[in-house]
This record gives sequence, structure tokens and C-alpha cells, in this order.
Amino acid sequence: MQNMDSGYVNDLYLKMINGDRLALSKAITLVESQKRDHEIYAQEVLEKCANGHGKSIRIGITGTPGVGKSTFIESLGQLFIEDGKKVAVLTIDPTSPMNSGSILGDKSRMNKLSHSKNAYVRTSPSRSKLGGTTDRSRETIILCESAGYDVILVETVGVGQSETEIMNMVDMLLLLVLPGSGDEIQGIKRGIVEIADVIVVNKEDRLEKNIVKDTLNTYKFALHLKSVKESGWTSTTYSCSALTGSGMTDLFQQINDFFQLVIENGYLESNRTEQHDVWLDQKVEELAIREIKIKTAESSDIQEIKSKVKSGKLGVYKAAQTIVSQILK
Amino acid sequence: MQNMDSGYVNDLYLKMINGDRLALSKAITLVESQKRDHEIYAQEVLEKCANGHGKSIRIGITGTPGVGKSTFIESLGQLFIEDGKKVAVLTIDPTSPMNSGSILGDKSRMNKLSHSKNAYVRTSPSRSKLGGTTDRSRETIILCESAGYDVILVETVGVGQSETEIMNMVDMLLLLVLPGSGDEIQGIKRGIVEIADVIVVNKEDRLEKNIVKDTLNTYKFALHLKSVKESGWTSTTYSCSALTGSGMTDLFQQINDFFQLVIENGYLESNRTEQHDVWLDQKVEELAIREIKIKTAESSDIQEIKSKVKSGKLGVYKAAQTIVSQILK
Repeated sequence: MQNMDSGYVNDLYLKMINGDRLALSKAITLVESQKRDHEIYAQEVLEKCANGHGKSIRIGITGTPGVGKSTFIESLGQLFIEDGKKVAVLTIDPTSPMNSGSILGDKSRMNKLSHSKNAYVRTSPSRSKLGGTTDRSRETIILCESAGYDVILVETVGVGQSETEIMNMVDMLLLLVLPGSGDEIQGIKRGIVEIADVIVVNKEDRLEKNIVKDTLNTYKFALHLKSVKESGWTSTTYSCSALTGSGMTDLFQQINDFFQLVIENGYLESNRTEQHDVWLDQKVEELAIREIKIKTAESSDIQEIKSKVKSGKLGVYKAAQTIVSQILK
Repeated sequence: MQNMDSGYVNDLYLKMINGDRLALSKAITLVESQKRDHEIYAQEVLEKCANGHGKSIRIGITGTPGVGKSTFIESLGQLFIEDGKKVAVLTIDPTSPMNSGSILGDKSRMNKLSHSKNAYVRTSPSRSKLGGTTDRSRETIILCESAGYDVILVETVGVGQSETEIMNMVDMLLLLVLPGSGDEIQGIKRGIVEIADVIVVNKEDRLEKNIVKDTLNTYKFALHLKSVKESGWTSTTYSCSALTGSGMTDLFQQINDFFQLVIENGYLESNRTEQHDVWLDQKVEELAIREIKIKTAESSDIQEIKSKVKSGKLGVYKAAQTIVSQILK
């Protein structure tokens, strides 16, 4: 990114809100940048966007690898486009701890959407929290909204904590599952089942109808205990085949019903206010941890404490307490 | 936990190192406690353990739900016990974001080990990082080591970031996979494949030999690019059936070979020193974030900043910067 200054940022912003896709991509790259001197400009763009955001609907799509998320998003995205909407798709890639590149990362998985003038597909690497950085999906959503996209589809890899995180940035969560396998509902997935607004049994074309039906029943049973959500929405289950298109129109209607409900009852608004609050808390943590790392590296006192721990002369907890009391006011 | 004082803690510690399993369980519950007044006593126990720890070997076992981790641990644990070792098994449960209880959480999955006098099975809930708390697996490992366990088997749910985290507390990582399905190697799994020391194709009894062979070849190919690790160990692949026991003895030998290598070449020691360093950094972050939360809640200045963000008068980033500068020295 060359010639970075406020003039450049303003120019980028104006192009972006006028529908320049390259400008949008550049703006996203800017907010994703790990360079500290890019940060101030990234924030300038975001501040400009603040007045324009909030008009889109944000849908999270999750499910384990192989469940058919890309094909599903292709199919759902088309339905929104046919309905006259502009659709942005954010896919978040898992990052290998061994190298920092993105793995799945190519738009070719969503061929039709990638070539539609009413769609924008962006693949971003997810970054390890352990590395002290967080992903920039929330910022990317704001940029896409300002760039005029009405619907934001956020794909996640469907594992681990990302569901809790994604709950904090989308309005609605779709969980994709495969027909069959009672295992699916166990373990890590139960948490996801509980937070999903619609559970979609995908690839119904591949298997016999009674297996699909059994799977639907299994999930219906699992949802039974926690069916009505804070949003006032009752979780539902659907079966479809994103590949053949069967069941997609009904599902599309469900999504519209959901948004009608949460817009009318005020949940959409109150949930976003709450998400904003969480975002601020996370930003405080992020900036604080970064500052703490810098202070730790710079302070010879703290380095001495660390070497005492290394040689076994001081316990981890006591050392951590001492370091924290030296850093915080 | 009643009558908590230093006398109680000392008594608990003495019982624990003398093989009292109930005392070990109580000590683990103490370090897992979220109550702040338990913290000082938890640290007292851990400080006492510091001199005793470091003699066990620590093995991480990961793989997606349904791959057969429990049966595998049952089988592997027996082999260690037959070899004269005492085995502790730590299983970490995924926690539903909707309730804080543990889901899989019962020892009945490892029936033989649970009833062996030379084994100890502990199921702990994993806690969301987002909640500002971290799991206490590392502390639990130290307690088990002090209680005389020679081998610590740490089971994870095999999803998301937990592999990176588990790398920071075990010496060796085994990845369990199922035969078949090319999907398995894609997406999130690639990162895990790269960090695993041994990839175990489990349930070989269930499928035809050529499918097992194909799967092995797929993983061998995937490992090819990154075969020699920092530890000096070359990643290997094995097939077995934990249920029938086939292949388990060879695998057991591999594990022993691994430890012989890393003990001799000094990697085990240097890796643990590094892990200790990471642990301190994480503890600093954990305590700092907790303090920041308290300070944020107490400060009326900060609450005012937060309400400005809520009403849209102030951007998230600028607000976070101001808050951090008020909290840090």
C-alpha cells in the first residue's frame, strides 16, 4: 500500500461508497494490515463508514468442512440477488499454525457469485488469538455495508470458538449439517446447535429420504429444550440440497421471516448495540495486550523477573502478579 | 470447598503426593475454581508442586468427535500400565456457550482406566477464552505429575485453536483420523496434520485394507513437505484399531522411540522451558485482562466513554485507545 495519507484514505473511501470494488478490496486489506502505521488510516476509513453502516442484514453460515458451505452460499447468494439485493460474502480461512498463509483461500469455490456484478466475495485469513491479533471480520462487515451491500454472508469454518465469536457479529446463524451420523450432534457441535437459528440438513439429494428425515428429527429433538431464543425466534430445521436447489426457496423465506421478526420486535437493534459493546471490550483487550507486550519487552525489571521464572527461582503466578502490578496503573 | 487455609492446603498437598486420589481431585478442583479467594490457595499448592514436576511424559491426543479418542486412550493407557507406569488422563470438554456445564463429561467412556488403581481420569470443562478465563490443563498436569503419575494423556476435542494451545503443554501430539474421506485432510485439519508427531488412522478394522492404505498414503503425502520437526522427529503415520488392539503395540513402540529421541537430544527440556515462558506470558495476559475489567467497571470516566460509543458519539477504536491509556502506566 503506497502513498498512505489522509488524502489517499478519503479518496479510497469515496471510491468505495461509489461501488468501486477494487477500492473496497484495498480498504479491507488496509483494516487487515498488521502494520502499526496503517492502523491510523484504517481507523480513518472506519470512522467515515460509521454513519453509513447498519442497514444490511448479516448472516453467519457455519458447519464442519465438507458439509457444502460454499455451494450453499452460492445458492443462497443467488436468491438474494434475484430478490434485488447486493450480496457480500466473507469467508474466513483457518490459518495453519506452521505458516501464516491462508489455505482454502480461493474465490473459485463460489464461481457464480464471484462473477456477479451484485456480489462481492472476500476471503480473509483468520488469525490466531494466541498471536495477540484478532481477525478483522467485524471491520470488513462495516466496510461492505458502506460499499452498499445489503446482505453480508459470513462463512466460518465451523469449529471451536468461532461460533461464539461469530454470534457477536452477525444477526442470524445458519448451521449446515449432513444427513446421517448420530455422532454429529455430540461433543463440540451441541453448543453450535444451541446457538443456531436454523439448522439446515444439506445434501438431501445424496441420501434416502428416511435418513434425511431421521437427521431432521434428531436435531429437532436436540433443539426442543432450547427452542425459543432471546430474539423471540424459534429455532427451526430444514433440509435442502444447495447443489440441486431443492428446499432453498423455503429456506430463503425462513430467513426473511427471521429478519421481519427481529426488526419488528427490536431485537436486531438491541443485539447490535450489545455486539458493539462487546467489540469495544475486545478492542480494549487487544490494544492493552499489545501495549503490555511492548512494555514487557522494554522493561529490564520485567525481563529479570522472566529469567527468574525460567531458572525456577520464581513461580509463574507470583511473577505474573508482579509484572501486572508494574504495568497497570 | 470448606475451611480453606494454608494448613488445609498443606494437608491436601501431602495427601496428594502420597497417592490419595481424592486429594488430587480436590486439588484440581481448587486450581479450576473461578473464585478469587481460592486463587491464593491454588497457587500455594502449585508452588509446592514446582519442585516435584517435570518427570512425567505428556502426550496430547486429538481428533474430531467420533474418531474414537476414548477407546484409543483406554487402549494406550493399558499399554503404559502394563509397562509399569502410572497414567493420568485429562479430558477437556467443550463447553456450550449457552450453559457452563460440561457436555461429554463422564468417565464411563474410559471404563477400564477409571477402575485401574494405576490410572486417574479427570474430565474438566474447557472454558471460553472470550469469557476472560483460561482452562487449567497446565496446572492440572503439574498436580498429576506431583501425585506420581508418569504419563499424562491429554485429550482434546480436536477442533479450532486447541491444537496450538495443546502444543504449549504437551511433549508429543498424536492425531487420530478415520480411514477414507479426502475431505479429512482439508481445511482446519491441515494445520493439525502439520503439528502432529504421529498420525494414527484408527478403526482400521471397520474398513477394507486398501481404504486404510489409501488414507495412510494421503497423510504420508501431506506430511512429506514438513516431515522433520524442530524436535528432530520425523512425523509418521500408523494404522490401528484401538477396539481390537491391532497395531497398538507398534504405536506404543513409536511413542517410546519419540521420547528416547527428544530426551537424548535435549528437545524435551528446551521445549518445556519455552512452554514455561509462554505460560508466564499467558498468565500475565489473563491477570491483566481481569484487572482491566475491574478497573473499567469501577471507573466512571471509562463508563462515560463507553456510553459515548453506545450512542454513536465516539468510534470504537478511539474509545479503546483512550481507555487503554487510562489503565496502563
